[in-house]
Amino acid sequence: MSDSSIVICECFARDGLQHETVAVTTAQKIKLIDTFTAVGFPRIEATSYSHPGRIPMFADASEVLAGISRKAGVWYKATCPNAKAVDRAVADLDAGHGANELSLLISATEAHTERNLRTTRAGQWQRVEEMVAGAGSRFRLVGVISVALGCPFEGDVDPDVVAADVRRFVDLGVGIVAIGDTTGLATPRRVRALFERLRREAPQATLVAHFHNTRGSGLANAVAAYEAGCRYFDTSFGGVGGHPVTIQYGQGRTGNVATEDLVNLFESEGVSTGLDLDRMMQSSKLCEDILGRPLDSMVARAGLGPVRTKGKVDA
Amino acid sequence: MSDSSIVICECFARDGLQHETVAVTTAQKIKLIDTFTAVGFPRIEATSYSHPGRIPMFADASEVLAGISRKAGVWYKATCPNAKAVDRAVADLDAGHGANELSLLISATEAHTERNLRTTRAGQWQRVEEMVAGAGSRFRLVGVISVALGCPFEGDVDPDVVAADVRRFVDLGVGIVAIGDTTGLATPRRVRALFERLRREAPQATLVAHFHNTRGSGLANAVAAYEAGCRYFDTSFGGVGGHPVTIQYGQGRTGNVATEDLVNLFESEGVSTGLDLDRMMQSSKLCEDILGRPLDSMVARAGLGPVRTKGKVDA
Repeated sequence: MSDSSIVICECFARDGLQHETVAVTTAQKIKLIDTFTAVGFPRIEATSYSHPGRIPMFADASEVLAGISRKAGVWYKATCPNAKAVDRAVADLDAGHGANELSLLISATEAHTERNLRTTRAGQWQRVEEMVAGAGSRFRLVGVISVALGCPFEGDVDPDVVAADVRRFVDLGVGIVAIGDTTGLATPRRVRALFERLRREAPQATLVAHFHNTRGSGLANAVAAYEAGCRYFDTSFGGVGGHPVTIQYGQGRTGNVATEDLVNLFESEGVSTGLDLDRMMQSSKLCEDILGRPLDSMVARAGLGPVRTKGKVDA
Repeated sequence: MSDSSIVICECFARDGLQHETVAVTTAQKIKLIDTFTAVGFPRIEATSYSHPGRIPMFADASEVLAGISRKAGVWYKATCPNAKAVDRAVADLDAGHGANELSLLISATEAHTERNLRTTRAGQWQRVEEMVAGAGSRFRLVGVISVALGCPFEGDVDPDVVAADVRRFVDLGVGIVAIGDTTGLATPRRVRALFERLRREAPQATLVAHFHNTRGSGLANAVAAYEAGCRYFDTSFGGVGGHPVTIQYGQGRTGNVATEDLVNLFESEGVSTGLDLDRMMQSSKLCEDILGRPLDSMVARAGLGPVRTKGKVDA
């Protein structure tokens, strides 16, 4: 990866689908992930080992991971909220079809931890330590800090807490840490200040910008993170994805930053994503077809900008 | 205006409505503009003196301007494509109810000038000179340069052309110049480079960022313009507004940057807009009610971010 390239993790199949009410079959999920592989994503969030009773959408996690066609060098990630989830990931790996990357969740505030993870921050950190122990050295591990840039319950989040969380992940050997703006409360100055601080205080960590576009600021925040040195971004086709807590509280669409829109912006700036743009647009269409409705990417409606034809848009 | 405040022109009543198919009565337009005045906008794009045969939505331009309740210090703008339009503006002013600000249109490319203004760039500049002469010193004049950051027909736009256009406006005594990203082709680096250059080469001009959110980059571009010193922004409630040329060519929603989303971002950054935020949200609802559908502001769905309650979002 050069200084002018970025690494995108496509999150549609997990963060995107997690709270969808549309039924999506195992075969459709496998098709989606295989399509994402063909587009060229270096990281794909494939599924979650959440308890099937809590999140029925991912009851087929093992089947999905067994069904996809893997490409060498691509990270297929599964989300793990607790040690039982990691046990399932290990069992799938032993069976020859596991994820090769696991994400371990933390929330930056007590109120969000309570509602989203049903424990305390101290309790969740204990879970994370168990998960790290359970995973051994068989997976690449990714720490995820939810509501790191603002909490719908507690408001502003202390950057000291986020910095300490990042360092704690690093100390546990978790070298990649996603900074989650879970409900779209970040703005560019806050993003820049936090990412610059984290680079100073935890230079060993590879930071990931996991931003939601709840209030339309997602791309502006992504640009700020890039300018602060961040090169890893989480996005979802069609800007799909949300968070049960905020949906429940009626805060509207809280989707991820749309893959199409972020890729169009960065590629137009000369920042390479390594993706096949034609296939990306076909993949965008597939996601809309599977959910049966137009999604929230503006580029899906308007088409790619100047990146497509080196300036000549309608050529 | 301090260095950390911005001046927003609310464009819903003109750029927003121009290509709406929903019927909007004169009384509704007056109510909209009076509401915008109450929100505290320092500039309001009120109507257009376009030929009523070409743009029937503004056949009632004079009635609207006669019906609104003006607030001292607020600029009520009308758009003028040619000298006949300026004659109508002068007549309304003579009758005691005119606009106090007029915008004069130029396109940065020949292809867009041909399709949007039905003349050549040389021909349109001649019209601008006639309009400036016709307006005398009775109005504040605003130059508008369409497709200044990318053209749907010609692709990349030469910054030399835009810089020369800005200087030409300034030489004609038109001190405020809007830089239009008419179909959402701009990206932050281009915006920053252009605005920094224009500040160097035409320091007398007050630049306005008139950006559309066609590809989701509108707020990122607005932040880039702000960082390059721009303090004037054009926005429209609900991100409404578009351009016939691009709508015709099927390029999707090409709406203005949504007022609600831009205000939420800047106010959250500590940049003052001078607006009453509660009234702004009520005004957002009024715009949706009048058009009879949910519009494209994310903040209209999700609510204001941390600005609302000094960090405590759900407090």
